Amino acid sequence: MSPDAVIVFAHGARDPEWAQPIERLAALIAERLPGTRVRCAYLELMQPDLATAVGVLVGEGARRIRIVPAFLAAGGHVKRDLPLAVEGLRRAHEGVELELRPPIGQSDAALAAIAAVFAE
Amino acid sequence: MSPDAVIVFAHGARDPEWAQPIERLAALIAERLPGTRVRCAYLELMQPDLATAVGVLVGEGARRIRIVPAFLAAGGHVKRDLPLAVEGLRRAHEGVELELRPPIGQSDAALAAIAAVFAE
Repeated sequence: MSPDAVIVFAHGARDPEWAQPIERLAALIAERLPGTRVRCAYLELMQPDLATAVGVLVGEGARRIRIVPAFLAAGGHVKRDLPLAVEGLRRAHEGVELELRPPIGQSDAALAAIAAVFAE
Repeated sequence: MSPDAVIVFAHGARDPEWAQPIERLAALIAERLPGTRVRCAYLELMQPDLATAVGVLVGEGARRIRIVPAFLAAGGHVKRDLPLAVEGLRRAHEGVELELRPPIGQSDAALAAIAAVFAE
């Protein structure tokens, strides 16, 4: 699907600086998808949470929302809790498509780019 | 420096599958640095820890070890604990160079590659 909104979903942390690369990632995605709203949402310790971010975007008129997990590896949060949360959000927002992407580490292209940076 | 060993330092998790993208990242770095030993080490819940990985590599003859944090964003572990741990390892292994790289999210090239995957 071609999304009309993207949510970069990250863990969150106490330190506000933690979110800088997440916000930068969101900005880089927005550059590649002109006209698409790109927002961040957090599992814990930062706001908004995923349900809030989805709610606001739906309120703004979004109907095809892509959720991208900014996690390198998939622990319980990403493997179990996130798909369940997205299922619940699908029931809460009938007529809205919610696409859940796999986390970063499942993309060999992304891992290869990271490997190139670290090998330099 | 051109390292003779690289340690991919990641968080760790209870689920053994969690480590798959970390191990894949290590393999991709090894492909780019032929002749360089590339190992993984973990902050918690998985083995080996960083001190063990450094110790084994030094025992095997490594003298220039690059530590690359497989973290997207830098929380307290990466910002404070990891530099302190590396300082301690430098004192423990005189004559061994330990280079500590910034985490993934500080590389715009890596973030751009991740953005491209998520925007597709």
